[in-house]
Amino acid sequence: MERTVATLKERIRAGSAKIPAEKVIRGGMLVNVMSSEIYPADIAVYKDMIAAVGDVEPYMGPNTEIIDATGKYLVPGLIDGHIHSECSKLSITSYAKAVVPHGTTSMISGLDEYISVSNLEGLQEIFNEVKQSPLKVFWGAPYKTPYTVPQSTVSFNFTKEVHETVQKWPECFGVWETVTEFVQEEDEDTLGAIAEAYKNNLPVFGCAPMARGTKLNGYLCSGVRLDHESYDHEEVVEKMRKGMHMLIRESCVTHFLAENIRAVTEVNPAFARRVSFCTDDVIASDILKDGHLDHVVRLAIEAGVEPMTAIQMATINSAEAYRIDHLVGSICPGRIADILFVDDLEKFIVSKVMTNGQMVAENYHISYELKAPERSPIFKGQLKCAKTTKEDFEYKVSIQNGTAKVLSMDVKGPFVRKRRDVELKVVNGVIQPDTQQDAIMVSVLERFGRNGNKSLAFCSGWKLKNGAMASTCAPDDNNLVVMGSSAEDMSIAANYLIEQGGGQVVVENGKVIEFLPLPVGGIVSDEEPEVVAEMEKKIDAAARKIGSDLPNPMMYMFFLPITAIPDYALTDAGPVDYRALTTFDPVLELTEA
Amino acid sequence: MERTVATLKERIRAGSAKIPAEKVIRGGMLVNVMSSEIYPADIAVYKDMIAAVGDVEPYMGPNTEIIDATGKYLVPGLIDGHIHSECSKLSITSYAKAVVPHGTTSMISGLDEYISVSNLEGLQEIFNEVKQSPLKVFWGAPYKTPYTVPQSTVSFNFTKEVHETVQKWPECFGVWETVTEFVQEEDEDTLGAIAEAYKNNLPVFGCAPMARGTKLNGYLCSGVRLDHESYDHEEVVEKMRKGMHMLIRESCVTHFLAENIRAVTEVNPAFARRVSFCTDDVIASDILKDGHLDHVVRLAIEAGVEPMTAIQMATINSAEAYRIDHLVGSICPGRIADILFVDDLEKFIVSKVMTNGQMVAENYHISYELKAPERSPIFKGQLKCAKTTKEDFEYKVSIQNGTAKVLSMDVKGPFVRKRRDVELKVVNGVIQPDTQQDAIMVSVLERFGRNGNKSLAFCSGWKLKNGAMASTCAPDDNNLVVMGSSAEDMSIAANYLIEQGGGQVVVENGKVIEFLPLPVGGIVSDEEPEVVAEMEKKIDAAARKIGSDLPNPMMYMFFLPITAIPDYALTDAGPVDYRALTTFDPVLELTEA
Repeated sequence: MERTVATLKERIRAGSAKIPAEKVIRGGMLVNVMSSEIYPADIAVYKDMIAAVGDVEPYMGPNTEIIDATGKYLVPGLIDGHIHSECSKLSITSYAKAVVPHGTTSMISGLDEYISVSNLEGLQEIFNEVKQSPLKVFWGAPYKTPYTVPQSTVSFNFTKEVHETVQKWPECFGVWETVTEFVQEEDEDTLGAIAEAYKNNLPVFGCAPMARGTKLNGYLCSGVRLDHESYDHEEVVEKMRKGMHMLIRESCVTHFLAENIRAVTEVNPAFARRVSFCTDDVIASDILKDGHLDHVVRLAIEAGVEPMTAIQMATINSAEAYRIDHLVGSICPGRIADILFVDDLEKFIVSKVMTNGQMVAENYHISYELKAPERSPIFKGQLKCAKTTKEDFEYKVSIQNGTAKVLSMDVKGPFVRKRRDVELKVVNGVIQPDTQQDAIMVSVLERFGRNGNKSLAFCSGWKLKNGAMASTCAPDDNNLVVMGSSAEDMSIAANYLIEQGGGQVVVENGKVIEFLPLPVGGIVSDEEPEVVAEMEKKIDAAARKIGSDLPNPMMYMFFLPITAIPDYALTDAGPVDYRALTTFDPVLELTEA
Repeated sequence: MERTVATLKERIRAGSAKIPAEKVIRGGMLVNVMSSEIYPADIAVYKDMIAAVGDVEPYMGPNTEIIDATGKYLVPGLIDGHIHSECSKLSITSYAKAVVPHGTTSMISGLDEYISVSNLEGLQEIFNEVKQSPLKVFWGAPYKTPYTVPQSTVSFNFTKEVHETVQKWPECFGVWETVTEFVQEEDEDTLGAIAEAYKNNLPVFGCAPMARGTKLNGYLCSGVRLDHESYDHEEVVEKMRKGMHMLIRESCVTHFLAENIRAVTEVNPAFARRVSFCTDDVIASDILKDGHLDHVVRLAIEAGVEPMTAIQMATINSAEAYRIDHLVGSICPGRIADILFVDDLEKFIVSKVMTNGQMVAENYHISYELKAPERSPIFKGQLKCAKTTKEDFEYKVSIQNGTAKVLSMDVKGPFVRKRRDVELKVVNGVIQPDTQQDAIMVSVLERFGRNGNKSLAFCSGWKLKNGAMASTCAPDDNNLVVMGSSAEDMSIAANYLIEQGGGQVVVENGKVIEFLPLPVGGIVSDEEPEVVAEMEKKIDAAARKIGSDLPNPMMYMFFLPITAIPDYALTDAGPVDYRALTTFDPVLELTEA
């Protein structure tokens, strides 16, 4: 419900039992995260609002629906404190289908991947989709886009002037993922976004992995409120002692919980008050297998956290960190009716889910027909870049024949790329990729029709033996990334995605052998989570067929354009040295034969 | 420091040790309210900001001043969660002199008494005074003024339209003291203020004494975040279980701590997390005798609360309740440098005080020259009402001689007025006050030049035997209240205050026998707290000289115009029935002789 004078009157009347409740939930045990108590209490719900908790008799009307909660614990809906849901390749609607049945009813998100491909117009379309979904999104306006240094190309550049407008939108709840380096380097747009947030009483969300000591102090002096990325528990302890709210990041992509939670279980239980959870990046198949925030709650309990405390971390603590505790995070009069029916607190089995006052899920499935909206042309159609040819993926040099020593970006785990020097042959003025030495070509193509940028570099670790693979889902720019041992196949892969409007593709011997369509902006799909999970398996299997032995070859590839990861990255502007924050020439030495 | 792009750069550099600290505090024990830990830590201060906590060596420069804190606990400045400082009759500057040396460095206030006499122009002048004082004020915009039902007269009416403007001011941190009844009665201005606060991401501060059950639920559904007035600990428990932050009100005027704190000490220690303190109304002499929030901390410790928890209640808990924890309430990098040097945590002896990065008090005295600003004509000069005559205070009726049964408002404690029926003589068409029966006259004169309202009624309990007393410090309207057994003396008292521009006065046999000047708007004084305390004693002594045996005759009188107190009140609009929320005729029956 909105908060106009008229709707406030309606809210007050419903709360005062002057209007009957639409539903009452009877017979359950309330998990009161405000008081850390569990006791029997009924709940009256009016529209999307909790009207009363406790004695609901005065709220009963002739049409009040009674929902039985006998034997159930009533838990506030869980809040994912930091998530790029787009990276799951699921649209908001599909993502809701995956996570809401597991109890995640709210997420804090920059929706930044959508913005990178669709501008603010597309963002409005996503806001509308959110309103029709059972999942709430508390949007943080990206501190600046692109996130890259040096600057790469995205569809829309977030500047401080943009912040002056968007921070006044009712959907905006803060500034998203303000990265340490941009604060430290005193980036004008970033500081402009922070200054604007201060004016608008909005919190600034951080991203400060490994920030300690004076670096952390400087960062905090800018006014950043919270962080979601700490590599060990001592980092968590320092950040919390210095006043930050800490989100522990845990998902199939990165596992921080076991280490981070030691701040609470080993160092000081008082830290629990300002610890909450996020998943940051997730994969559809892992949600389907393990769950989502419910899984994180279970992991925390297994690590020795009391169930009440673990639930607080997943609910009210997040809400307080983001200053949305007046809306979500607890079961109290006036809050939004996001209520989980949980069978067992230790095992944290979510049997039913109410969001916005509606029963929406049961036994880990959405219990009503939920359809994605029709997509506008903003999100559909061919990519805005020219078709490629084989030549686009040939690295030409000033010598005709001989050898080239090149810096190949060697992938270590999903995020890290290390230097690897490789000597490659030069034939007819072109450096030859060499599958024997595991040194192949990788390219990023700007695909928003802004400048036609194309980059080309060398990479290792994927071990492709032939063919190529490509993806337009590639955070945070979501340009077209293509990798291969064959320039022909790379061109075929790229052109296929351009025609299809994006997705992921594997090409072998001139033929598309697998394609994962991502028809919404080239980054996400409206298919059911199960379908996307299946397609992901197939596309990775295809990548393995052409030689890769990585656990997630596509994901390891699509993180390549992120310049905030050590030591190397590749954007449409060229190969980037993470430390120097400059592009570099990957050709180190040429020797004419 | 402001938060512009330029000042953010300066803050970040200072935090990163690229600019040396102006001061470092060395050798103390940090009371870390964020982590509930006490450990040795040094503090680097740059301008008004804490730049670093812990190792401050990198922050040392050639001109860095070293402040020794050996043997001291370093505690965040205390926050008074709800205070009308004007009711102490001390101007902001004088009030700061009284409370800052006791460790109160921030207060949340509506500054509503100033607004009632000086409009928004006067408020701006007060904001400027605050900036020059060592005391910070986090201003909440009054939900609507006047607070009275039916509406009385103040210099300025706060409406929802006013909220649209003032809530955007940087000084505004929320909506002040939104009273239950105005929410329940769906007052348009009040709901407009709440709707506007929602838009501006500002919290709504409540005032819900004795609200329970459906009444409380309805109130919470409007979105009110916190409350500062509960009559027993069960009320505290219900409000906190339903999601409110609770401020325990404790001062010489009303004592709620012993009862309210039982919610924490007897019912559930987990409630401590969202409990904080306020004083609401204080008297200069009591601050000088017992202290201020330091006294409340001591009382909480005596009641069985751990010192760390009591300190959190007085600091970070308040800051979180009001969503100002990014600014004050803890000693962390980036926060404002409000730091107390405390000798003993149990006894909570505040030996030195730093506010805004400056050492300002030592041994319970301000340690530098602190002067009140020159006052503009907004706050000075004769009251805007016509001089009175004896006839203004004669209650005329339709019979010439006989008896009149009247409803006399009988004061019980500072706030409560009960019905007392008295039979008085009518002589020459005028009802005669009767000191034998303790039924005298009381009047309120509108004094802002808006409508010339005057009311007249009967009161008991003050036991004045002769003369009159009057005050222009009279929350929340601050009209001229005058009481007496003699119409002549009432007129003399009123006229004296009109000429003097306000204050408090006692008249006996046609002569002013005591006068307490309140030259700032007729409500506060720039004199030293000790001087005002002394004058208060004298004015009450004078009131006792003319017959009163109340502990604070003037204070009991000046609360008379508050219509939110049971059962009766008197405003310039007439005598008010608290339950019916209407004016009433105090003459119940006339019998002609």
